[in-house]
Amino acid sequence: MSEQKIFRAAMIVIGNEILSGRTQDKNIQYVAQKLNDKGIRLSEVRVVPDIDDEIVHAVQALSEKYDYVFTSGGIGPTHDDITADNVARAFNVGISQNEEAYKILLDYYGEGELTDARLRMARIPVGASLIPNPVSAAPGFNIENVYVMAGVPKIMQSMVDYIVPSLVAGAPLLTRTVETSLYESELAEGLGAIQDQYPDLDIGSYPGYGPTKSSVSVVLRGIDQSQLDRAAQDVEAFIASI
Amino acid sequence: MSEQKIFRAAMIVIGNEILSGRTQDKNIQYVAQKLNDKGIRLSEVRVVPDIDDEIVHAVQALSEKYDYVFTSGGIGPTHDDITADNVARAFNVGISQNEEAYKILLDYYGEGELTDARLRMARIPVGASLIPNPVSAAPGFNIENVYVMAGVPKIMQSMVDYIVPSLVAGAPLLTRTVETSLYESELAEGLGAIQDQYPDLDIGSYPGYGPTKSSVSVVLRGIDQSQLDRAAQDVEAFIASI
Repeated sequence: MSEQKIFRAAMIVIGNEILSGRTQDKNIQYVAQKLNDKGIRLSEVRVVPDIDDEIVHAVQALSEKYDYVFTSGGIGPTHDDITADNVARAFNVGISQNEEAYKILLDYYGEGELTDARLRMARIPVGASLIPNPVSAAPGFNIENVYVMAGVPKIMQSMVDYIVPSLVAGAPLLTRTVETSLYESELAEGLGAIQDQYPDLDIGSYPGYGPTKSSVSVVLRGIDQSQLDRAAQDVEAFIASI
Repeated sequence: MSEQKIFRAAMIVIGNEILSGRTQDKNIQYVAQKLNDKGIRLSEVRVVPDIDDEIVHAVQALSEKYDYVFTSGGIGPTHDDITADNVARAFNVGISQNEEAYKILLDYYGEGELTDARLRMARIPVGASLIPNPVSAAPGFNIENVYVMAGVPKIMQSMVDYIVPSLVAGAPLLTRTVETSLYESELAEGLGAIQDQYPDLDIGSYPGYGPTKSSVSVVLRGIDQSQLDRAAQDVEAFIASI
């Protein structure tokens, strides 16, 4: 099983509103869960500001390093929506009015309402294919291994749901969680030993601090169900032995 | 005002639990708000996995690029807590038992309970100074311009509150928000023109999609209150004119 190719993805959140603290990000977890369920590991996330060069550099660095890159934010009609232009720059391709996107916007707004601002949303890098937007029409797009999505969570989620089924992926990442009221430090040595026995699994421990008592979640992740079950049994037996 | 040095920071979230989608990040927004209130712009966030080289590279790249770097996660007693070792590697310094950290842990746990696993939390890069942990004793630390904090939100927040007042900073980033029920595309041209008039401000528009109606928040950010007030008045007058 461990010889299988592991598909890895990165996400770029383009948004001053996250970096200013105005908005609590809700997109990372959604993308993470959908990708991992599909068999693609979300391996890095970058939140970058609405600055041309920062977007270009992040797209270039991550599209080279990972199998897939997902961006969210910056594809609306206003002056701060600079994602499409910078993705085009990142791949050194032109950007122009996409006829398919134009028709989608014309159909949605009607001729009299398709203003210059709205037409900006039909500007798509040359060679990209569109990602439908069932909420507000303006499409996302895919170029090379980069998927450009809206930042509004409801729209982003529908775009993720559209994209993910068609991606080539590996085995889904499976998870087992063992909860305990022991302290992390009591678990440390034994968990380290179990991790050493199962190099193909990723075993993490996450302390939680409730109002009255602490607890630790031991999370085991991997692609081989029987290996995961054996390791989880070992963790349970170890905890019971303390 | 625009000649003033702008202090910029980055954050590194070290955590497989965020990338797997298991945990919703709660730390980015807290750090963003506290830094921006202080007069330090959070300019980039990276979420990286619990992999040695990824942590080293992120620390090196971001500590070189920004005035301050804040990390969260990976400083507990278990095998997956690898942050301290990799921050030491990033700065090419040794790591050893820090006597001050040892005393803090000894005081908290008592001699009989200060196990090898817990002693791991006294391993601190040589030359670093400690950041107190009022919740569970194990300290964070500061080396060069990097501040290493716990990942558990309650602990991380108390560390941020301890660190931020002592940082050298610029003018706080001030914000004005104008809400409207107009569409973003109706605002686009006018907002772009106002942005051009105020190059020192950052004007963003953020659509929200409620169950029955849409709305847009126009957010203006800058360090000069009177300029911000004038620009917000211009935005209000523009919206009223549509």
